[in-house]
Amino acid sequence: MKSKRRLQTTFDIISIGYELLDGRILNTNAKWLAEQISGLGGKVCRIIAVGDEVGEISSVIKDSFRRKIDWVITTGGLGPTYDDVTLQGVAKAVGRKLVLNKRALEMVRKKYLELFEKGIVDSPELTPHRMKMAMLPRGAKPLENEVGSAPGVLLKFKKTRIVCLPGVPNELENIFEKRVKPLLERSVKKIHTADRWLLIKGVPESTLAPKIDDVRSRFPTVYIKSHPRREEGESIINLYMRIIAQNPRICRETLDKVEKIITELAEELGGVVSRLEGAPR
Amino acid sequence: MKSKRRLQTTFDIISIGYELLDGRILNTNAKWLAEQISGLGGKVCRIIAVGDEVGEISSVIKDSFRRKIDWVITTGGLGPTYDDVTLQGVAKAVGRKLVLNKRALEMVRKKYLELFEKGIVDSPELTPHRMKMAMLPRGAKPLENEVGSAPGVLLKFKKTRIVCLPGVPNELENIFEKRVKPLLERSVKKIHTADRWLLIKGVPESTLAPKIDDVRSRFPTVYIKSHPRREEGESIINLYMRIIAQNPRICRETLDKVEKIITELAEELGGVVSRLEGAPR
Repeated sequence: MKSKRRLQTTFDIISIGYELLDGRILNTNAKWLAEQISGLGGKVCRIIAVGDEVGEISSVIKDSFRRKIDWVITTGGLGPTYDDVTLQGVAKAVGRKLVLNKRALEMVRKKYLELFEKGIVDSPELTPHRMKMAMLPRGAKPLENEVGSAPGVLLKFKKTRIVCLPGVPNELENIFEKRVKPLLERSVKKIHTADRWLLIKGVPESTLAPKIDDVRSRFPTVYIKSHPRREEGESIINLYMRIIAQNPRICRETLDKVEKIITELAEELGGVVSRLEGAPR
Repeated sequence: MKSKRRLQTTFDIISIGYELLDGRILNTNAKWLAEQISGLGGKVCRIIAVGDEVGEISSVIKDSFRRKIDWVITTGGLGPTYDDVTLQGVAKAVGRKLVLNKRALEMVRKKYLELFEKGIVDSPELTPHRMKMAMLPRGAKPLENEVGSAPGVLLKFKKTRIVCLPGVPNELENIFEKRVKPLLERSVKKIHTADRWLLIKGVPESTLAPKIDDVRSRFPTVYIKSHPRREEGESIINLYMRIIAQNPRICRETLDKVEKIITELAEELGGVVSRLEGAPR
């Protein structure tokens, strides 16, 4: 399992806010991020929702460190109010202090000046609450938020990169697309995937299952899933195989090998095997 | 924070399935469960999505044990196929073997007989895959599933109760409502809540904020949230307070005390305080 995971750059998504835990809102942010990350070739290992508590936030982030996750992405809790405690949680997890970040302060200052000029706020003043959004863990970089006031945050800690994004969906999406995605495109390990379908007739799935389990344990990078059905009393299995590997040649050669083994096993059990062109209709 | 949490019965929701981690599906099951649990007076501490891996499942469940969570509710991974490994994960977490549970087997047998009689399956035979759904961790109880074939599972381990529900929403909801909710209604600690709104005029939120932080730390069972705005240059704060306690008297007396302290603090800062009847419009 370890070797399988390590072919891909790993991610944990940590969603912060009591509103997720009492069922008030659906965690659409996590789904959106998971889709983006998978699309880039990354592997999301866990999605965790916790409340707005410094100890809880710090505890789940530390757990990601222990599991040597490459990227931890948090959402929510970056705003100006007391219960926005994400950065306190991150600071606690990495054992650093929150300090006023000049670039973040400049971002916040510019944002409130804009909001003031548009008549949205009554004053461009940098109140303590507004300055709070520029207090980042020592060593962190702010990520510009074009649509809201709280900057995102990027922080490296040992081998893990931590990205903190706001909870407001369009702010999160803006920062992710403009500031985070370009970084991920450079740093996410390039992976290749390939898949194949076999049609196996005349072997009951319950007979083939233990054999497939053996194959699975010998080829941990190959995901094998069988979809059994019966047609006029005959057992029919659509067998799906998918591989993730560092290069297309390994993908192809490994799938060839697995296909050959499964074909032989099924034929020994009296089955007839053929390769399908793409997914069964 | 500890004392605050322990007033309520605690829950972790563990959602199992790769389809949640690659963004294919939204975790609507977790939201539904969170709403149900909150409605009963329980506190959801974490919602965690992990993949279909025995080690991962076992690891997050063990973490719930370490945190002395009262109820762990898993969703997904109870079906007949190889990648349904939730019960293997639970068995590993509690250090018990999977054994054929006679009551669960009877449920599965009855179900396939029904499906066969309705012409939905070709045979009522208890294949190894179907029997797999009756292999429960030693000491577990099956929970009847009226709408699908995999029974739910209830297991006590030390002070934690583990409930395993299928991932198919209507099966999950059926088992929860018919088998789990009655148990929770008996075992979830009865809690009382009360809330109150204050209107504070003439004190900037940035001045009041540190004082409120002090009050918050002295009364950890009280949730305090301020909603500041400006009207014609004047600072106006709608201050919300909510308390959770074991009896209504404590709720009322504590809120009275907190209201008095905040009123005095705001008045010392030159503010004018009044109590609102319910939430501000």
